[in-house]
Amino acid sequence: MFSVTILGNNSALPAYNRHPTAQMVHLNEQNILLDCGEGTQMRMLEFKVKRNNLNYIFISHLHGDHYLGLAGLINTLNLTGRSEPLNLFAPPPLEEILRLQFANGNTKLNFDLRFFPLPEEAGPLVETSTFRVSTFLTEHRVTCHGFLIEEIKKPRSIVPEKTQEFGIPFDYYPALQNGADYISEDGELIIPNEILTEEAPLPKSYAYCADSRFTTSFLPYIENADTIYHETTYLDDLREKAESRYHSTTKQAATIATLAHAKQLLIGHFSSMYDDLTPFQLEAASVFPNSIRTQEGETYNI
Amino acid sequence: MFSVTILGNNSALPAYNRHPTAQMVHLNEQNILLDCGEGTQMRMLEFKVKRNNLNYIFISHLHGDHYLGLAGLINTLNLTGRSEPLNLFAPPPLEEILRLQFANGNTKLNFDLRFFPLPEEAGPLVETSTFRVSTFLTEHRVTCHGFLIEEIKKPRSIVPEKTQEFGIPFDYYPALQNGADYISEDGELIIPNEILTEEAPLPKSYAYCADSRFTTSFLPYIENADTIYHETTYLDDLREKAESRYHSTTKQAATIATLAHAKQLLIGHFSSMYDDLTPFQLEAASVFPNSIRTQEGETYNI
Repeated sequence: MFSVTILGNNSALPAYNRHPTAQMVHLNEQNILLDCGEGTQMRMLEFKVKRNNLNYIFISHLHGDHYLGLAGLINTLNLTGRSEPLNLFAPPPLEEILRLQFANGNTKLNFDLRFFPLPEEAGPLVETSTFRVSTFLTEHRVTCHGFLIEEIKKPRSIVPEKTQEFGIPFDYYPALQNGADYISEDGELIIPNEILTEEAPLPKSYAYCADSRFTTSFLPYIENADTIYHETTYLDDLREKAESRYHSTTKQAATIATLAHAKQLLIGHFSSMYDDLTPFQLEAASVFPNSIRTQEGETYNI
Repeated sequence: MFSVTILGNNSALPAYNRHPTAQMVHLNEQNILLDCGEGTQMRMLEFKVKRNNLNYIFISHLHGDHYLGLAGLINTLNLTGRSEPLNLFAPPPLEEILRLQFANGNTKLNFDLRFFPLPEEAGPLVETSTFRVSTFLTEHRVTCHGFLIEEIKKPRSIVPEKTQEFGIPFDYYPALQNGADYISEDGELIIPNEILTEEAPLPKSYAYCADSRFTTSFLPYIENADTIYHETTYLDDLREKAESRYHSTTKQAATIATLAHAKQLLIGHFSSMYDDLTPFQLEAASVFPNSIRTQEGETYNI
C-alpha cells in the first residue's frame, strides 16, 4: 500500500471548512505525516486516521499553517500512552520552540521524540530496506523543504513451480533474487534467471512540493515521481500575486507535473479567497490531464 | 451586554466534537478572549464569533490546551488586516515562544501586540471607567491564573423630566450623578438627589476559574461574582483522580459556587473519558441548583 490521505488542503487562513496543510502518507507499515497545521489532530479524529501508529513527521517550513498543530498532537500522543519513538524532521528552530512549550507546560514526554534538524540542502533523510525519504529545497519566503518518498526496488521474486521443477537448492535463492542465473555445481545445468524469478513490481514514489513559487530548480529531484503534490494557492489569472507571495498557480503546478513526467498530480493549499474550487480542477487539467483537486478526508493512491 | 460564548469546553484531548478551552466574553464594546486552545479560530468561524473586534486576550496557564491556538489566531488577524492594538496578558514565557514563532516564520505583525506578563500574585490587570479585570491564582500543576471581570458601577442617571421641572442647571448634573442633593444658589431650594436621579443597574461580574483542583484559597477574590465558571474535568466519583491531577469534580465546582454566593455556575473542561455529559449537569445541580453544563457555540448571560 502506498497512499496519501489529505488532512488539510487550505492555505494559511482556514475557510469553507478547509484547514491548514497536513497529509498522512501510508507506505506499507509506515505512517508518515507531512506538515501539521493547526487542528491536524482534530482532522485525524474526524477522518478516522489513526495517530498512534505514526512513525515519522516531516515539517516543510516554519509558517504557522504548516506546523502549529504539532505541539498539540505530540501532547495528545503523550496523554494517550505512546511509548514508541517518534522521528521528527523539521527546520532547526522548531526544536527550541517545542522545548519551551513542553518545559513551560511541565510536560515530560513518555516516549522518545527524536528531533532531526533538516539540512539546508537536498539529500537523503531516511533510508531503510523498503523506502527512502529525501528532501529538496523549494523557493518560498522562508527556507522550505519538499520531500520525496520512494519505495526501494524489491528483489526479484522466486517462481516456486520453476525452482521446484529444476530442484534448485534453497541457499541459492538470494542469488536468484539478485538476478543471477542458476549454474549447477558441476557446471552442467544452466538456467537463465528470467525462468526462475519474476521482476518485482516497480517501486513508486511521491513528491511533496510543499509551498513554492514556480521554479524548475527542484525538478531534478522529483523527475519521474509517480505522484506529485504541488501547491496551487491561486488560479492562473493571479500569476503576479502568486509570484510576489512565493506561491504557485494551477497551471504552474501542472507544468511542473508535465516537466517531471509524473503520472498523477495532486493539488492543494487553496487560498481562502475561493469558495468553489471547480476552476482549480479545470485549469490544472487543461495543462496536465491527470490533475486531482484534493479533498480533505480523501485518500489517493500513489 | 455582558455575556460569554463558549468556544471550547473539553479538557486536553479533543473528543466527541468538543475542543480545548476558549471563551469569548462580550462586555459592552469589549471583546475579551479567555484562553485560546488549538482550533479556537476555527470555532470562531463555525460559531460566527467575530475575531476582528477582539480587544483583550487572557491566557490562564501554559498547558497546550489553553494556548496552542494563539499563534494561529494572531497570524490570521495579521493576514486579515488588523491594525488596532491587541492586549495579551499571559504567563511570561509565552512572549519568547511567540517571538520565536513569528521570527522564524518571518512574520511581521502589522498591529501592536502588547504583551503583559501576568504577575504571580492576585491583583488588578486592567481598569477603565467601565470595567476591571483582575487575576487570582488557582491551584494547578503549573502556575495558573483565574480572571475576574467586573463592570464598574455606573454613576446615577439623571431623570430628565424632574431636572427640567425644577430647572436644574446643566453644570450641576455631574454632582447629581455622584449623589449630591440640589441646593439652589440662594440656598432656598433643596431637592433630594433621589428625586432627580435613579440608581444605575448593579454592576455584574464573571469569575473564570480556569484549571484548578478543589481549593477555597481563591474564594475571597470571586466572592459574590454573579456568574462563576469552574472547571469540572471529572464526575464526583473520581475525586482522588481529580486531586492527583490538579483538577476538580462537578460537586467540588458546585461547592465553590455555593461558598462564593454566586447566582449562576457554568461548568466545562470535561474529560474525554465522557461522551454523555448529562451526569455533569445533574451532579453539579444537586449541590448548586443554578449550574449550567456549557455547550460549545452557546452564549450565556452573566
